[in-house]
Amino acid sequence: MPKIAIVQAGTVLYDKVATLEKVKKYVVEASENGAELVLFPEAFIGGYPKWNNFGITMGTRTPEGRKEFKRYFENAIEEHGEESKSIESLASQKNIHIVIGVVEREASTLYCSVFFYSPEGYLGKHRKLLPTALERCVWGQGDGSTMPVFNTSVGKIGSAICWENYMPLYRMTLYNKEVQIYLAPTVDDRDVWLSTMRTIALEGRCFVVSACQYLKSSAYPSDHLLRKEHGDDTVLIRGGSCAVDPLGTVLVEPDFTQETIRYTEFDLSDIALGKMDLDVVGHYSRPDVFQLTVNENQMSTVTNKKE
Amino acid sequence: MPKIAIVQAGTVLYDKVATLEKVKKYVVEASENGAELVLFPEAFIGGYPKWNNFGITMGTRTPEGRKEFKRYFENAIEEHGEESKSIESLASQKNIHIVIGVVEREASTLYCSVFFYSPEGYLGKHRKLLPTALERCVWGQGDGSTMPVFNTSVGKIGSAICWENYMPLYRMTLYNKEVQIYLAPTVDDRDVWLSTMRTIALEGRCFVVSACQYLKSSAYPSDHLLRKEHGDDTVLIRGGSCAVDPLGTVLVEPDFTQETIRYTEFDLSDIALGKMDLDVVGHYSRPDVFQLTVNENQMSTVTNKKE
Amino acid sequence: MPKIAIVQAGTVLYDKVATLEKVKKYVVEASENGAELVLFPEAFIGGYPKWNNFGITMGTRTPEGRKEFKRYFENAIEEHGEESKSIESLASQKNIHIVIGVVEREASTLYCSVFFYSPEGYLGKHRKLLPTALERCVWGQGDGSTMPVFNTSVGKIGSAICWENYMPLYRMTLYNKEVQIYLAPTVDDRDVWLSTMRTIALEGRCFVVSACQYLKSSAYPSDHLLRKEHGDDTVLIRGGSCAVDPLGTVLVEPDFTQETIRYTEFDLSDIALGKMDLDVVGHYSRPDVFQLTVNENQMSTVTNKKE
Amino acid sequence: MPKIAIVQAGTVLYDKVATLEKVKKYVVEASENGAELVLFPEAFIGGYPKWNNFGITMGTRTPEGRKEFKRYFENAIEEHGEESKSIESLASQKNIHIVIGVVEREASTLYCSVFFYSPEGYLGKHRKLLPTALERCVWGQGDGSTMPVFNTSVGKIGSAICWENYMPLYRMTLYNKEVQIYLAPTVDDRDVWLSTMRTIALEGRCFVVSACQYLKSSAYPSDHLLRKEHGDDTVLIRGGSCAVDPLGTVLVEPDFTQETIRYTEFDLSDIALGKMDLDVVGHYSRPDVFQLTVNENQMSTVTNKKE
Amino acid sequence: MPKIAIVQAGTVLYDKVATLEKVKKYVVEASENGAELVLFPEAFIGGYPKWNNFGITMGTRTPEGRKEFKRYFENAIEEHGEESKSIESLASQKNIHIVIGVVEREASTLYCSVFFYSPEGYLGKHRKLLPTALERCVWGQGDGSTMPVFNTSVGKIGSAICWENYMPLYRMTLYNKEVQIYLAPTVDDRDVWLSTMRTIALEGRCFVVSACQYLKSSAYPSDHLLRKEHGDDTVLIRGGSCAVDPLGTVLVEPDFTQETIRYTEFDLSDIALGKMDLDVVGHYSRPDVFQLTVNENQMSTVTNKKE
Amino acid sequence: MPKIAIVQAGTVLYDKVATLEKVKKYVVEASENGAELVLFPEAFIGGYPKWNNFGITMGTRTPEGRKEFKRYFENAIEEHGEESKSIESLASQKNIHIVIGVVEREASTLYCSVFFYSPEGYLGKHRKLLPTALERCVWGQGDGSTMPVFNTSVGKIGSAICWENYMPLYRMTLYNKEVQIYLAPTVDDRDVWLSTMRTIALEGRCFVVSACQYLKSSAYPSDHLLRKEHGDDTVLIRGGSCAVDPLGTVLVEPDFTQETIRYTEFDLSDIALGKMDLDVVGHYSRPDVFQLTVNENQMSTVTNKKE
Repeated sequence: MPKIAIVQAGTVLYDKVATLEKVKKYVVEASENGAELVLFPEAFIGGYPKWNNFGITMGTRTPEGRKEFKRYFENAIEEHGEESKSIESLASQKNIHIVIGVVEREASTLYCSVFFYSPEGYLGKHRKLLPTALERCVWGQGDGSTMPVFNTSVGKIGSAICWENYMPLYRMTLYNKEVQIYLAPTVDDRDVWLSTMRTIALEGRCFVVSACQYLKSSAYPSDHLLRKEHGDDTVLIRGGSCAVDPLGTVLVEPDFTQETIRYTEFDLSDIALGKMDLDVVGHYSRPDVFQLTVNENQMSTVTNKKE
Repeated sequence: MPKIAIVQAGTVLYDKVATLEKVKKYVVEASENGAELVLFPEAFIGGYPKWNNFGITMGTRTPEGRKEFKRYFENAIEEHGEESKSIESLASQKNIHIVIGVVEREASTLYCSVFFYSPEGYLGKHRKLLPTALERCVWGQGDGSTMPVFNTSVGKIGSAICWENYMPLYRMTLYNKEVQIYLAPTVDDRDVWLSTMRTIALEGRCFVVSACQYLKSSAYPSDHLLRKEHGDDTVLIRGGSCAVDPLGTVLVEPDFTQETIRYTEFDLSDIALGKMDLDVVGHYSRPDVFQLTVNENQMSTVTNKKE
Repeated sequence: MPKIAIVQAGTVLYDKVATLEKVKKYVVEASENGAELVLFPEAFIGGYPKWNNFGITMGTRTPEGRKEFKRYFENAIEEHGEESKSIESLASQKNIHIVIGVVEREASTLYCSVFFYSPEGYLGKHRKLLPTALERCVWGQGDGSTMPVFNTSVGKIGSAICWENYMPLYRMTLYNKEVQIYLAPTVDDRDVWLSTMRTIALEGRCFVVSACQYLKSSAYPSDHLLRKEHGDDTVLIRGGSCAVDPLGTVLVEPDFTQETIRYTEFDLSDIALGKMDLDVVGHYSRPDVFQLTVNENQMSTVTNKKE
Repeated sequence: MPKIAIVQAGTVLYDKVATLEKVKKYVVEASENGAELVLFPEAFIGGYPKWNNFGITMGTRTPEGRKEFKRYFENAIEEHGEESKSIESLASQKNIHIVIGVVEREASTLYCSVFFYSPEGYLGKHRKLLPTALERCVWGQGDGSTMPVFNTSVGKIGSAICWENYMPLYRMTLYNKEVQIYLAPTVDDRDVWLSTMRTIALEGRCFVVSACQYLKSSAYPSDHLLRKEHGDDTVLIRGGSCAVDPLGTVLVEPDFTQETIRYTEFDLSDIALGKMDLDVVGHYSRPDVFQLTVNENQMSTVTNKKE
Repeated sequence: MPKIAIVQAGTVLYDKVATLEKVKKYVVEASENGAELVLFPEAFIGGYPKWNNFGITMGTRTPEGRKEFKRYFENAIEEHGEESKSIESLASQKNIHIVIGVVEREASTLYCSVFFYSPEGYLGKHRKLLPTALERCVWGQGDGSTMPVFNTSVGKIGSAICWENYMPLYRMTLYNKEVQIYLAPTVDDRDVWLSTMRTIALEGRCFVVSACQYLKSSAYPSDHLLRKEHGDDTVLIRGGSCAVDPLGTVLVEPDFTQETIRYTEFDLSDIALGKMDLDVVGHYSRPDVFQLTVNENQMSTVTNKKE
Repeated sequence: MPKIAIVQAGTVLYDKVATLEKVKKYVVEASENGAELVLFPEAFIGGYPKWNNFGITMGTRTPEGRKEFKRYFENAIEEHGEESKSIESLASQKNIHIVIGVVEREASTLYCSVFFYSPEGYLGKHRKLLPTALERCVWGQGDGSTMPVFNTSVGKIGSAICWENYMPLYRMTLYNKEVQIYLAPTVDDRDVWLSTMRTIALEGRCFVVSACQYLKSSAYPSDHLLRKEHGDDTVLIRGGSCAVDPLGTVLVEPDFTQETIRYTEFDLSDIALGKMDLDVVGHYSRPDVFQLTVNENQMSTVTNKKE
């Protein structure tokens, strides 16, 4: 019966130090409440600067927008950088799994990633395969080499970020890796999100846990235009974190009113109840009709060879 | 702005003549109300004998069960049989498209199919690819040769029957054929069905229309054991037909209380509103990571070759 | 000595009929002045709605933005659609080659394409491989199957659209196909564009011809917000079309002041003058050190197979 | 904010002792002015005997030309030779990075190389991959084993010599190694050079610093024919050293009038401003279409094996 | 006893029509004299513009030099071009093998090639692997894909052009292909050339036949600077064609005085006399000590893949 | 400007003591004449018993032949034996380099070797890799472990014995070790030998010095059958020693008339004159096409392993 904590909170935008403090606070709280895994929303470190447009319109990027991007760039973290190491330590000290959405920096491109940590150390990452809309102007694309499902003491965990949840072929890939706890960090706070989470739980016959940010305009630095314009109390992302069981039953109902931490507990062996009549990578598949080939190679435009 | 009629009704079980009368009645009504297409539920002709088990348990089939199957078999229809021709005439007379769930008989196997008719004639069919649970004891499997999307005057239409809606690769196939009006005849009357329909609409950026049977125990012949046991007023399938637009907005809310015909109207060009930020077979796909190959050949175990 | 006309003009936004009239006008003028090829800027048909953002900020798309996108979508053209056929006729009637930037619609995704026409008919297209910044929210990505160089009576022509000109590997691909007249339709009106065009001419030892839009706010419909805000006379894209010879000499200097049509004439055999000391796919390459493999297959997430 | 000194000066031809004095003078001056790195032009040690042809015409080499080549050969330096060690000391004493174009001798072949020194010692070298025109008669070709980017306290530095700057695949290799300060020692003094430097800065989103020789005919020994013919004051290479930022802005404008040392200072973190909308090895690449393989092995016709 | 004609003559520079007439004249004469194979010198078609430097000195190419290169470029021929076809016809009509040095044009690079024709048609080509000195400024490098030895009715023939004869590894490659008649078209007219030809005959135990141009300044067009300077009668290349048997005996002594055609006849079975005590790819080799690996792949910097 | 003495003399056959006296005499003479290196012919110690056949015919060896071989065997020397030590002393005393052909004995096999001595001591040896013809019946084969080039105060010296000079891959190995003075002790007294020496000098761009024996029948013991048969004055090996510079110019012309000592002096830095346009292991090589791997391991049939 794994107990999972779902953090519904927001980044301190452009301030990764303060954000890391927030990470720490929630991990400690989750740990004290007996959780074995804590899930943070998409881009929790690095942030999701909602309503911002980085000065981008068709055909133009303003110098101010570029400067804001630089600020954003500098608040991203690296896979093996010091921020990542501090989360690794935290997972170890508190004996907990941490799965957290981050803005990852590699070379000069940013990625929307999820970093996975167990008490034994850093496990690996998933990079969002397809940023949505304006995200395409600030984040690059992940590839097939970062689509892991980790077999942990909590269960088999994998993740799909925000609208990746609408990519049927990526979901099939996770189902095929036998994901048991499907983690969906997001910033999508529409009502319909719960429908999607229920449908995925039903389709994949897995537990689905989704953590959404709760972000207010005060998350922007005090000198930021959007904060000046909207004051401190405008809700930019209203939450809606939830959890669903493999038969579509809602375990944690969305709360659209506050920053909060929620808990859910379930029995992984219940998955068998659902797989009995639907198993899209097993008895409910048609390999004679549909063949999905997944390229898991790391893609790099340039390859250096040296023997 | 196509207007679509959704028939939420039930078969007269084991009486295809009476059922055909019912088809006629609803087609006429839909036509009079200006509908250009009328959708009937899954297995409307032939029927979905809910709660029946055809005397099948692990390792045994009773003689009574076999007899009931024979009755069921005889009430199925053939693709080019007289019942199909009469529906073809009806579509022509009433100048309407008819999409209807049928139990199809070919040789000695039954299939759960959807037949498509336009005012110009019979268009073709889709056969359910994977029957669910006990259905597997009475229906065979379709193959990749019957997964059409028809470009009609109403729009591009295709269909997924009941839990085929949980087959991500089949849905991808329909999206890839540019389905605009995704028709989902079903007998699934759970609350969560609407969640699934909304998710598919969002994922496929198409209009989703689902027709579910409304079936009472009186649908069984008066001599049938189940009718005797449950009386005439037990609701076997409670409906829940619905329609959703490409952004997930519910156009027709489920009604779980009665046999009824519902109408919905929409503007296909609104699909562009949704495809703007999600097109899972276009700008929101990753052909470099995921390659889905679909076998559309007709599959036959025995092939005679003569040169 | 091919004579080439360079159209520096702008789309009538959201009005493809009026835009086609403009195409016709310039083709006729170019033809009368003896041009054998006329080049239009990027997205000339379909348009480049500069300063517009389709209501997109991080995490949101407004309903108004979606509606504007729909309007944009409807003003795109199809490869074999009627608008394309009318341009084909024009090329034939006026005995001229037409190379024109268009917003192309296939299924539900838009692409920023260049269509090529000779007096003998439609030749084919190039689709932009990587939209820039906000373009990524409205245009999909082309693939390796549309990177043609056509051997015409005017010379060997290929094209790179706007910032594709900053993709070294795409340029190498064009050079390797022996492009002689490198056509660069664009909306980039920075001063530095000329530097880039000169560098490409020098690097590829080819003639480079670039056509940039000249677009004023009056190009927007009179009811459009941006027009209301900026009046009729704000210059959105200021031109800067140019032509350069294989040694980097500027043949047509940029004009940033007006809508205009410019002409340039040159002798293709002069390419040999430049290739003498630089041929990046011939004597000035190092195949033992650098190997570029180009995938020219059409990429599709879903492939239907039917024998 | 690294400060970089750009030496625009010329070799004392055929006199490496005097040339080394000149190196020392400029390094000292640069160091006193607070520079952290000083860049010298192509072939600064060893020299670029402009207008000389070593007695080479099609099919002949004159004895005088051979003798001049021998003189040239003797004024080349070796990677670990005494001249290189003296520069290494200088870098250490003055606590400065030195990047300098040299004519390198290995066995019996000369190479046009760049040697890199940090205050901590010799870092390594880059050998020109493709000599241009007559250079092919006096210099051999480098291979893939000497294409370094060094991560120094000044930033990540790499170099491309003269027309290597027109090799798209070599540039891609440097970008892929995350070059931040792209050093371009050259003897190309055409006006158009600045265009090329700006384009590379834009394409690679890096700082580009180019040092060109300023060479007068008096650089030749007093008994040299070219000096007799042209007197002492003919300008053979007129400079044009420059520096450009990642958005193409010119930081140091070319000076074509004199021997001089120029300085530029910049903030490497500004690279993020440019990478935001163009990163040709990251989010602005198409690894599914273009695959560049780079052979970094040292190439040798003969390999001795001894265990 | 094959009889071989050796043409010692010169190109009509920059006039490929007149040069082809000369080819025809010598082929006819050789045929009438009973030769089965006629060998022309290096670059006979296209020409070897001796003493010319195409305006190239260190760091400069003059516009006049470029124009001359263009003229040179235009007088080169293509592998399957009309000039090649006319030679093919000639070989067929006169029932003779023709092996001829040509300047070959592919795309924008020139190569110094040898084309081989039998009475049955075009056989293939060899491209010079390493141009010498100034040639590197006008010709590209061949690769391992054009190092043929053809088994003809005359014997096994292969060729090495000019200083390729000083490439031990290329010679080994020809010996290993069992060359019997080693053809050495050249423009090297030094006394020492005969020594080299004898040494190769001895080393390879093959017949060596070398054809050198005999070129006078009158070969340049009358308006050419070199002709004006040197008059009509300066000897630019003085011949020295020769033939040697496998034991080093000179069969045809060099004639340095005139344009001429020489004949030699020999018995291929004499090769065995020489191989008895030296066979550098057989009993006189040490495969345990020396391993030569030859890459015969066609090298191309860019490879397009399309299935 | 090293001065080199070339001894053209013959062995006192089957009398190594007398032969060593002869060695001493020539070393002293050379030293007195200022030579820094003295080169003796092939097999000078041990001898080259010309016209002798050791009683060997196909299938038989006579007892007399065996006895003669024993005599030959006993007159061979060992690498570190007393004869070698006495030559070492001589080199030291006379402050000269000695390079001398010897018949070397190791265990029960003879080798045709060259021993190298500097004033500082014994340097090492080269063993002939491939004996020619009947030599194969008396000498074994060297391997890749004895192919040295020594960097001495005279220059970089290596050697190839007799027909090893026709082994292209061995020559490549010496060139690759940067041989400057290529020493060719031989017994080949054909006219054509000079051609070969000139070709090697040209190919390797090195100085070539060849010492050939001058041997009369009187060299055999007075009781020897061959001496009885031919008298004392028959010339068995007629000399032909020579020296050539890197451009093929003959520095010492062959003298076929007498035993003699010749001298040559040259300037090693002139090698650069020749390498300018040909360097077969540098700028004139094609490592992408030809890869020569040289096994320098000592080869032994039996290897004892003890850990």
